Amino acid sequence: MYRLFADPTSGNCYKVALILHLTGQEAQIVRTSVIEGHTQDPRFRALNPDGRVPFLQFPDGRAMGESNALLLSLARGTAYRPADPVEEDALLAWLFFEQYSFEPNIATARVWRHFTGVPEGHAEVLAAKMANGAHALKVLDQALETRAFLAGQHFTVADIALYAYAHLAGEGGFDLNDYPAVRAWLARVSDQPGFLDMPALFANAPTVDFDDALAAA
Amino acid sequence: MYRLFADPTSGNCYKVALILHLTGQEAQIVRTSVIEGHTQDPRFRALNPDGRVPFLQFPDGRAMGESNALLLSLARGTAYRPADPVEEDALLAWLFFEQYSFEPNIATARVWRHFTGVPEGHAEVLAAKMANGAHALKVLDQALETRAFLAGQHFTVADIALYAYAHLAGEGGFDLNDYPAVRAWLARVSDQPGFLDMPALFANAPTVDFDDALAAA
Repeated sequence: MYRLFADPTSGNCYKVALILHLTGQEAQIVRTSVIEGHTQDPRFRALNPDGRVPFLQFPDGRAMGESNALLLSLARGTAYRPADPVEEDALLAWLFFEQYSFEPNIATARVWRHFTGVPEGHAEVLAAKMANGAHALKVLDQALETRAFLAGQHFTVADIALYAYAHLAGEGGFDLNDYPAVRAWLARVSDQPGFLDMPALFANAPTVDFDDALAAA
Repeated sequence: MYRLFADPTSGNCYKVALILHLTGQEAQIVRTSVIEGHTQDPRFRALNPDGRVPFLQFPDGRAMGESNALLLSLARGTAYRPADPVEEDALLAWLFFEQYSFEPNIATARVWRHFTGVPEGHAEVLAAKMANGAHALKVLDQALETRAFLAGQHFTVADIALYAYAHLAGEGGFDLNDYPAVRAWLARVSDQPGFLDMPALFANAPTVDFDDALAAA
């Protein structure tokens, strides 16, 4: 089965756990806390030199990171990843937008404002992230004014990727009331068959302790 | 034919121009200067609400941004984008790594140190980008110690994506002598059949003036 190193507070980790769940692929979650320093652990770095989560060990012995690459890999051959070139192009553009323009602003604002506090000397950086995050939410909102889901008429991994931090944007200090098309789409996503929210997904998944997983590796 | 809004100093724009050239797809380049404010122009924003380049208009009337999504789209069905799932997974992971961990550090350091100067109050941000960029180059270097190209034995769009800013890292203040496997791979990439470097590619492509392109749009 799959083994997913995941921090249950991370939207990027949630994406991967959700597509594994939706596609019915069995997975164990290795509880990995970024704040407690697990991703700095030399034993973890030996498995994953990039030192980030999510990090997925495959049943065939491969292992890789990058949440949106994992969404595409795990959804291959399913309706969550359409094969039609026009739909795939749209889906891919949204996945890269998410990792470049959306997550670095919204997820970092959320970590600083909700979990750790703003690091000293980073007030201007936070201000830039709030402005860029608001722009990214506006781009998302405009797109969703004219379509039900990001790649077209069907729910795909593009929706999972953007949902992951859009639904947590309030914890970063963004007001989702400013983005009505985003709010309506968040509700459509959470109405999908098999959908589980972040706490439910991590509460229900088979779990392995971080040290136990690394001792066995 | 394709029409590509591109800034000839941008590695992200170079990626898209290069795959169009390598796959023999005709394209006009619309010369777009970020520093001169073209991407803020309301006429450009009307076409592309995200306001960034590269931005590609397709022969079929579609248009989209996101350099790495465009690499995958334009290479579909060619050897530059292998269909094998294991190779595709590796390729995808590198494309997302590039946009999340590589480009935001190396390209921004390059803009500040080579073009604009470091913005006031951003000394700590630059220091973080230098540390994170060095880590990303190290991850790339370690991977290239054991393989000729990023997705395996063949040159793919993953190599184009990482080449775009790896070959410019010196302009960001990174010393490529610290990354010997990266240097050897840069030479392998530039030896590929049909390869053109960034100045040659933009010098040779059919070009349209920004204002003329928008007046015609």
